[in-house]
Amino acid sequence: MEVTTEIKTLYDDKKFQLECGADLAPVQVAYQTYGTLNESKDNVILICHALTGNAHAAGFITEVETDNNSNPDLLQVYSKLYKGKPGWWNDLIGPDKLFDTNRYFVICSNILGSCYGTTGPASKDVNGKTYKADFPSITVRDIVHVQKYLLDYLGINKLHSVVGGSLGGMQVLEWALLYPEFISSIIPIATSAQHSAWAIGLNETARQAIENDPVWNGGNYDKQPFDGLSLAREIAMISYRSQPSFQKKFERKTISDSDNTFKVESYLRYQGKKIVERFDANSYLTITDTMDSHDITRGRGTIIDTLNSIKVKTLSIGIDSDLLYPAHEQKEFVKHIPNSEYAEITSIHGHDAFLIEFDQLNAIIKPFLEDIIT
Amino acid sequence: MEVTTEIKTLYDDKKFQLECGADLAPVQVAYQTYGTLNESKDNVILICHALTGNAHAAGFITEVETDNNSNPDLLQVYSKLYKGKPGWWNDLIGPDKLFDTNRYFVICSNILGSCYGTTGPASKDVNGKTYKADFPSITVRDIVHVQKYLLDYLGINKLHSVVGGSLGGMQVLEWALLYPEFISSIIPIATSAQHSAWAIGLNETARQAIENDPVWNGGNYDKQPFDGLSLAREIAMISYRSQPSFQKKFERKTISDSDNTFKVESYLRYQGKKIVERFDANSYLTITDTMDSHDITRGRGTIIDTLNSIKVKTLSIGIDSDLLYPAHEQKEFVKHIPNSEYAEITSIHGHDAFLIEFDQLNAIIKPFLEDIIT
Repeated sequence: MEVTTEIKTLYDDKKFQLECGADLAPVQVAYQTYGTLNESKDNVILICHALTGNAHAAGFITEVETDNNSNPDLLQVYSKLYKGKPGWWNDLIGPDKLFDTNRYFVICSNILGSCYGTTGPASKDVNGKTYKADFPSITVRDIVHVQKYLLDYLGINKLHSVVGGSLGGMQVLEWALLYPEFISSIIPIATSAQHSAWAIGLNETARQAIENDPVWNGGNYDKQPFDGLSLAREIAMISYRSQPSFQKKFERKTISDSDNTFKVESYLRYQGKKIVERFDANSYLTITDTMDSHDITRGRGTIIDTLNSIKVKTLSIGIDSDLLYPAHEQKEFVKHIPNSEYAEITSIHGHDAFLIEFDQLNAIIKPFLEDIIT
Repeated sequence: MEVTTEIKTLYDDKKFQLECGADLAPVQVAYQTYGTLNESKDNVILICHALTGNAHAAGFITEVETDNNSNPDLLQVYSKLYKGKPGWWNDLIGPDKLFDTNRYFVICSNILGSCYGTTGPASKDVNGKTYKADFPSITVRDIVHVQKYLLDYLGINKLHSVVGGSLGGMQVLEWALLYPEFISSIIPIATSAQHSAWAIGLNETARQAIENDPVWNGGNYDKQPFDGLSLAREIAMISYRSQPSFQKKFERKTISDSDNTFKVESYLRYQGKKIVERFDANSYLTITDTMDSHDITRGRGTIIDTLNSIKVKTLSIGIDSDLLYPAHEQKEFVKHIPNSEYAEITSIHGHDAFLIEFDQLNAIIKPFLEDIIT
């Protein structure tokens, strides 16, 4: 499978107007593509990633093509962390896989506000100064508009489907509302139509963990706030898994006979350490705020009317053990989307099941994809 | 109803040997009693409280009787925070209530390691120095042994029942294993027989929140570590409620039209602030470790054999929406207790339902209590 990894500078000739009123320029976007674009430029599947995800959804990175404006540190992150490692949905994307690159041209782009090649708080502004605490608020709609700009830039005429879990699923829903003519179907997974109070509360504790760290320094740090960012990640990790999932993995095991630290504690600390190596604390703050602002009704009317207005073919997938975006959310919102169906993943793994239960995702999504008339 | 609130010094003539090997003396215990002890001194119900709970389970505090060793700060806490406020299970304890003080003599004592009158990290050691970081590790068994010592001191011959939710339920299970001859029945609610990996992980994030706070200073603080302790509480609060419970209470409401802070964020911060006013950070660390060490099999054999050895009449109560101690835990462990039954509370409120769903608790527990032959 041909994998291209590119980082392009968009909006260099005009400014990108954010929903909050501020504008941003230039906007750089990192993306990967898998497979080949057909002649009518409509065999495209867009994959949307989650909070700390990135464009490396499948295959292996060989080299990163960039233009002049790319931040060399980020390229190092990509090549250091992801060279030799398959993308996060590699089981689903590739020749003869669910998102079959013999048929489809699959694209995944790093979201606005992130730190994997697309403009975010760790990027430099037009004056060469790193944004840090001055990076503006980003909404899911802003993220989608930038994705659309990229697709236009690539000359794409139509999306066969837009797919994503968690924050990725929020983008998927906004795609259906912002660009209905441009897409044939959507597959939102383990997500919500309006970010819930429980999910907001959880994000708030993660933000406080970062902001309580003196190293964070109001966002104007040079070195990452290790304690705060790692704790933020650990809090999130707990919400991503269910009680039975952790129980199966760790039981009450300690790391050794002489050290009674529980394995689960050591695992969480390791995950905390890893996030500090690969993700920017200000991006974490920015994107959790983005998620909290997610509400498909904003400026549109009631939830029923808004869902009713989604005319594209929709497959909503819930996870029975998801604590963060409980299955009842997916089941409820899809009821009001006219041309829709609902399916549920059975798993002990909670929210993370969309990154684990590939057989079920395959079985659920395959017939739906086949049925789409572009 | 007669409510007495007393703080007594026990183990002043001998030392209390902890499970970890260290010993503690003196040990002070704060407790409340409701109702009247009968002549045979066996009409007693012991109520066990949860992590940040205290002996004020019912009625109203009028005055606190103390002996010479009591910490005046703590008495201030009691009278300031709880004077004029009913106890945490006031709906269940009193004349003609579920735990009917016309029939039963009800006792609740503050647990070892806490900060409401019973010896804990904020108490002074025998040399008059506050323990702080030097307070030893406490297990649920230590807590139960101190409760038993108190009951012996009060001349009680037998407990009609031992009841409690969450950490209270862990004490209840240990009571059945440590002092089976002394009790007629147990009612563990929303708890586990072995603290799960998910619950340990959650406690670990709360501990890190406190330990990341520079004010904590390795436990040797004079002023409470506000940021850390309040964040620890906020993390816990999220696990105590379910997604639908928060959704019902807060929706996506903001605190005002001009301030887009979500109500759920403001609520969590308020709860965080409140805990700092009323609970000691080192006690929080000590008791979360106590919970994590909870494992009824420790030194006893397999889980099946240990549960099988519980011969007292048992009513295990789960909560269908509990994320922290999911109902399947209660349902599973009770299967192996010979003389037992299981009941489930239906609630959207998650773990906290044992402090909310009084009608259901009443309906479930009342017939069980009536049936107990002392």
